[in-house]
Amino acid sequence: MSITVVGSIAFDSVRTPFGERERMLGGTAVHFSLASSFFADVHVVGPVGEDWGEAEMATLARPGVHTHDIERVPGGETFFWCGHYDYDLNTAHTDDTQLGVFAEFEPKLSEDSRACEVLFLANIQPELQLGVREQCDRARFVALDSMNLWIDTARDALLRVIETVDCVLLNDAELRMLTGEPNLIRAARTVIGWGPGSVVAKQGEYGATLITRHGFFSLPAYPLESVLDPTGAGDTFAGGFLGTIAAQSGPLNEEVLRSAMAHGTTLASFNVEEFGTERVSRLRPAEIEARVHELGEMTRFSGLPLPVRG
Amino acid sequence: MSITVVGSIAFDSVRTPFGERERMLGGTAVHFSLASSFFADVHVVGPVGEDWGEAEMATLARPGVHTHDIERVPGGETFFWCGHYDYDLNTAHTDDTQLGVFAEFEPKLSEDSRACEVLFLANIQPELQLGVREQCDRARFVALDSMNLWIDTARDALLRVIETVDCVLLNDAELRMLTGEPNLIRAARTVIGWGPGSVVAKQGEYGATLITRHGFFSLPAYPLESVLDPTGAGDTFAGGFLGTIAAQSGPLNEEVLRSAMAHGTTLASFNVEEFGTERVSRLRPAEIEARVHELGEMTRFSGLPLPVRG
Repeated sequence: MSITVVGSIAFDSVRTPFGERERMLGGTAVHFSLASSFFADVHVVGPVGEDWGEAEMATLARPGVHTHDIERVPGGETFFWCGHYDYDLNTAHTDDTQLGVFAEFEPKLSEDSRACEVLFLANIQPELQLGVREQCDRARFVALDSMNLWIDTARDALLRVIETVDCVLLNDAELRMLTGEPNLIRAARTVIGWGPGSVVAKQGEYGATLITRHGFFSLPAYPLESVLDPTGAGDTFAGGFLGTIAAQSGPLNEEVLRSAMAHGTTLASFNVEEFGTERVSRLRPAEIEARVHELGEMTRFSGLPLPVRG
Repeated sequence: MSITVVGSIAFDSVRTPFGERERMLGGTAVHFSLASSFFADVHVVGPVGEDWGEAEMATLARPGVHTHDIERVPGGETFFWCGHYDYDLNTAHTDDTQLGVFAEFEPKLSEDSRACEVLFLANIQPELQLGVREQCDRARFVALDSMNLWIDTARDALLRVIETVDCVLLNDAELRMLTGEPNLIRAARTVIGWGPGSVVAKQGEYGATLITRHGFFSLPAYPLESVLDPTGAGDTFAGGFLGTIAAQSGPLNEEVLRSAMAHGTTLASFNVEEFGTERVSRLRPAEIEARVHELGEMTRFSGLPLPVRG
């Protein structure tokens, strides 16, 4: 099955306690595409400016990544984000944002992009997400990301698009804010009540939790002694998650979603090991498989028969 | 194998968004003992005042809990803690603490308590922990809890006792503070370098992580739609954890520690369902077994063969 992702393509300048980079290739659609391309064909829909060059295209256009719906805006500048992280690496501090061509972005999908079976509505204005959702009416599985800004300023539109998707991916704080429900399980159940069959709570260094109509699954982050740059971890997770789903021909049951969680977690763990797209760009399939297997070993236990006393 | 726990016995007045209770039975040794008594005999060492009555003793003295080393101090008052939690339930806000007899506590262990095979040094002054550790020289497995106050004011003594134990149980923030290492895995490795073979990072609503010399294991908290009072969750976890270890006659390997994590997580989940000791006091063994099994189901995944592409 093929995937379509609609979201930002960006230059990121990032500083962490472990180093810094100027104007790296970044953005939600980029991190997502690199990760998902290990499992399925992915069509990228997003705008770039005239500052977008062959080097960027070469990094993005790895096998399986289709770039013909990347819109190059004459005279425009590519979305730019500049930020830093302190020692705990959990919070991104934004120092500068220049929307550039992203400010006027109107997604234009080719027939190939519209024909996707899996769709990822990355974090953009909910009205735009809704328009894309309507165009991709043959999609078998649609997932959506969002952020506090849209929950705050475009809640009605966000709820309208949430009703039309199969899976909502948000972090814990966003889920609580969206539903007004401090208990995470109840927050997820509220979202499921609106339509989506599943919710993924992204929990940063604590991993991710999947809540479905009748199921619960949680996976820790893969343990790393060295994290250089968490930028793009969530979108890389989404890429591994939806890539796994797109690679299945059978029914999209709980087992598939759990495997997708494991692959998302694994891809995200590689992403944060180095800056920007550096690590995922040279990732090998065997490394993915080995780490998914390790994650399985790290979460397995037997209840051991115990003399429990009354 | 029998367990000895040395720690506080208290009255707790607690207010959460879901209710409040005045002067409930509480304290680290109490929560620990109730939980561990499902699996092994436990000897409680701690002080109470003259306000400690038959009702408290009746709640604590369930089968398997040995109370002869509870020291009743004439004219004294039992340790009292008063606090509240806001909606997110993650942070305990202390409104009042009256140490009472706990201020002058000097642990006095009977031969029965000294003969334990498993020892839990609950959160008390590190010098006192060290004295108890030396008396229990036949213990096969010793675990320790502590807090920011001792890391700050009695660091040298704390490090001396840490060198003598098998397992350190702390929350994430305490582990980072103790080691000066923001990365949790490196923080745990630092502690293991001091002597203990294992570290348990308590992560509240995110569960708990076990790091050993050669292993890593993480388990989410059991998902609850209703949490009434998190007080004592950490000590209840420790009770289930060390109770499971005490119930094993074979080697204390990684498999045993993982099963102990599952039982600790399970006991803690029951503890927070109601106020104070209310839920654990009427817990039935079959409920524990069922929830451990559920936790196993909630964390299991298969990596599914995928057409990963290079």
